[in-house]
Amino acid sequence: MKITCRKDLLNHAVQTVQKAVATKNPLPILTGIYLAAQDNRLQLQATDYEIGISCSIEAQVEKPGAIVLSGRYFQELVRRLPGETVEIASNTEDRTIRIASASAQFNLLSLPAEEFPVLKPLSSDQSFTVKDNILRELIKKTVFACATDEARPIFTGGLLEADELGIRMVATNTHRLALKKDVLDAFGQPGINSKVKMIIPAKFLAEVARLLVSEVPMDVKVSWHKNQVSFEFDNVYIIARIIEGQFPDYNKVIPTNFATVAEINTDQFGAAVERVALLAKDGDYNIIKFSFKPDHIIITSNNPDVGKACEMVGATMTGNEIDIAFNARYVLDIIKNIDSELLRFSLNTPLSPACIKPVDDENYTYVITPVRTS
Amino acid sequence: MKITCRKDLLNHAVQTVQKAVATKNPLPILTGIYLAAQDNRLQLQATDYEIGISCSIEAQVEKPGAIVLSGRYFQELVRRLPGETVEIASNTEDRTIRIASASAQFNLLSLPAEEFPVLKPLSSDQSFTVKDNILRELIKKTVFACATDEARPIFTGGLLEADELGIRMVATNTHRLALKKDVLDAFGQPGINSKVKMIIPAKFLAEVARLLVSEVPMDVKVSWHKNQVSFEFDNVYIIARIIEGQFPDYNKVIPTNFATVAEINTDQFGAAVERVALLAKDGDYNIIKFSFKPDHIIITSNNPDVGKACEMVGATMTGNEIDIAFNARYVLDIIKNIDSELLRFSLNTPLSPACIKPVDDENYTYVITPVRTS
Repeated sequence: MKITCRKDLLNHAVQTVQKAVATKNPLPILTGIYLAAQDNRLQLQATDYEIGISCSIEAQVEKPGAIVLSGRYFQELVRRLPGETVEIASNTEDRTIRIASASAQFNLLSLPAEEFPVLKPLSSDQSFTVKDNILRELIKKTVFACATDEARPIFTGGLLEADELGIRMVATNTHRLALKKDVLDAFGQPGINSKVKMIIPAKFLAEVARLLVSEVPMDVKVSWHKNQVSFEFDNVYIIARIIEGQFPDYNKVIPTNFATVAEINTDQFGAAVERVALLAKDGDYNIIKFSFKPDHIIITSNNPDVGKACEMVGATMTGNEIDIAFNARYVLDIIKNIDSELLRFSLNTPLSPACIKPVDDENYTYVITPVRTS
Repeated sequence: MKITCRKDLLNHAVQTVQKAVATKNPLPILTGIYLAAQDNRLQLQATDYEIGISCSIEAQVEKPGAIVLSGRYFQELVRRLPGETVEIASNTEDRTIRIASASAQFNLLSLPAEEFPVLKPLSSDQSFTVKDNILRELIKKTVFACATDEARPIFTGGLLEADELGIRMVATNTHRLALKKDVLDAFGQPGINSKVKMIIPAKFLAEVARLLVSEVPMDVKVSWHKNQVSFEFDNVYIIARIIEGQFPDYNKVIPTNFATVAEINTDQFGAAVERVALLAKDGDYNIIKFSFKPDHIIITSNNPDVGKACEMVGATMTGNEIDIAFNARYVLDIIKNIDSELLRFSLNTPLSPACIKPVDDENYTYVITPVRTS
């Protein structure tokens, strides 16, 4: 292999695939980045068998071929190269790869390219396209609610649904649930012949959102086949395994009628909850208490080892007064994701699930289960 | 105790003393911040017995007194308080302290104030003053060269000297040495009755430099008495123990004649050394090699597990060509501290100490011992 390419493009491609490079995998080949040159393109790939990412860039290909370089060193190096272009050439005598840029020259040992599990695009006729900004919001506003505990795999992923009603993503750890909906202009396009419904690993979704940063609007093609799903956009292709299992009917857990509805300034509420949470007891449940009154909410915590906190935040309430306790982190997580000035906190009883929403977005819903206190 | 003060002042004072709060100390009282109110001042103190920091601010003192609060919680809390002012009052019934700001109210458990080792100003007639920016530069440009290994305590501190020639700071770990000099206008002022020479802990010096960030030029008063040294500026007082022992005569290790002198662009040299160092072998000695030629320097490294690196940097050399090896980190440390466009690298033989200086600052000198290679 022998190619020349722009350094900034190469660096962007290396940073793109970098997250899929295995760091702890027992298979050495997975700690590498695969480079394949052909037809004036250089393709980079990395996979840890959970996620696979491929990114291709323009290159002058003098001699086609494929090599694998240490992900760690190649990434550190490319980032710092001095020139505007980079030349990469394999040395046929030893197993080294020469990387030259301006006055810098490196000879990196390569890994055996034939051992790399090269990513192949899914051969699928099942796909649809979605705007990048819509997909990014779907992920960002829900994926934090996934379970991190691997005990119940279906909750470590986000459920993606698409049908004639639009596109939706749902995530839950059974104690709280986030649902974000949007329109899907493209529904009905060839490829979607039935309702789409699949659970996609949270780690993978977070990576897709990280890569969706283009300032130019673009389409993302979502394809699936058997137990795999891929997202394709710009010059990037990213693939992962679909989580098997049945996601529970989330509509059943979203309450629709409420005995208490309060509207609260999002920033003030967030700051107050954060302060009270400082004194919440460490451990699994950072319990803080909320007392909903007609024109304000009193938020308190009590940590026998540290002290007590009490905050008052103005609110417009209709319905019944209520005292209720929540895990502080679950409340903070949603407040951080609400962009509107006001949020709506809707409740029923101290032991039934409550609902938090931005007042101006009917398409975003968060359900949170209260904590029983003595 | 009962006081009211401005929140921004209180926050600044807490952040100032915070670094002296003990985190791992077995004595619980040292994990606290001491607050004493008297004569319209609130004084905050923290000490871990290595460093003591005191900072005082204006306050309306309704009832004088002293309390100690958990450093960790008090700091987190004050930073986030919502109001412009804060009221702090001790509750005589229980041991709690009420902290109120706007609609937020906290009751923190206090620690027994009588157990806190209150810092007393040194009763010393030995002192001099130095401009803050001069002291900050003396520290910043040398303290990184100290030893981190506690085996030889004298090298874990910087040597501060002041006399009729000026003020100087020296730091070394015996493999490299940094010396920075400056003028001392104030020499001869009452208080300095002999040459000043003391070894001050690096951790303490770094803390002093961190606190010297005022945009308004100010004087720093340096005092010492027996085995203690204090720095006083603005509303801050910081004290530590002087390291006992004899600092070696550093003038003896600074070479004055050279067989090879090269002038090199600082940024280009730094970037090249950093890239070559990427492939230096991990471990205690990140060895990289330098080959000095009449109009350039070739920098190389060789790591059998990863590969080889080779960089060429233009240079203006006079004297003999020379091949020499150094610990890459020791070279990078000084390059980062050179502000001028060009640096001067002066050498004798592959086994004798070399010297790196900014070309425009005769008062800054770095000596580095080469590494013997096979």
